[in-house]
Amino acid sequence: MSKDWLDEVKWTADGLVPAIAQDSQDGTILMVAWMNRESLRLTASEGRAVYWSRSRRKLWRKGEESGNVQQVKEIRLDCDNDVIMLQVEQQGGIACHTGRRSCFFQRLENDEWKTIDPVLKDPAEVYGKA
Amino acid sequence: MSKDWLDEVKWTADGLVPAIAQDSQDGTILMVAWMNRESLRLTASEGRAVYWSRSRRKLWRKGEESGNVQQVKEIRLDCDNDVIMLQVEQQGGIACHTGRRSCFFQRLENDEWKTIDPVLKDPAEVYGKA
Repeated sequence: MSKDWLDEVKWTADGLVPAIAQDSQDGTILMVAWMNRESLRLTASEGRAVYWSRSRRKLWRKGEESGNVQQVKEIRLDCDNDVIMLQVEQQGGIACHTGRRSCFFQRLENDEWKTIDPVLKDPAEVYGKA
Repeated sequence: MSKDWLDEVKWTADGLVPAIAQDSQDGTILMVAWMNRESLRLTASEGRAVYWSRSRRKLWRKGEESGNVQQVKEIRLDCDNDVIMLQVEQQGGIACHTGRRSCFFQRLENDEWKTIDPVLKDPAEVYGKA
């Protein structure tokens, strides 16, 4: 039997691995979330990002509520085998639950975290709670 | 007294936060490493990436051995305040200890991790062990 690519990932004691999603078109780092073995397997087989929600303790098919699905173009692994990187096409152009393109919208300026990226869509609207 | 920007970071139980380094010029994700409070403070004050080496349990000024210093252009924080992202200028063009530009040189292809990026410099040479 050939070796399983999932066995080569160094999972944390909790059975997780962090995953970075990067926009395959312009290189924007969109978000970081966690995956367990099942979510990484599904990400590869379904071709869309599936994470593990630590707070809800369940699989999280990115976009299942918001519609902001991430189509996966490429799956990469780092030299220590303990971080995943996805090249994705971000549907709707919004990855963050705040309605911003990227989760990394705070920048350090003069010893303060400043929010510098705009909200593109009201989160209440994104999650159908408007 | 004004609040300390370092207090706004959500540190793990071990007092760490993961940090992604992205090339500020072409968007390449170079590496992911850990920071403790002191290393993040120094990264901001010195303008170069300073990580915390979990294996050696000491501050690690990126490039101190290899010369591959990361000049920091921007420090960002994500929406959960638990991941740091650095925009850097990678001196020498090499971030990975294997002598490759990026640590993410393995790509999933047909259920196998394939090494797809070239070694730019022999690690033995990089670390003066040639």
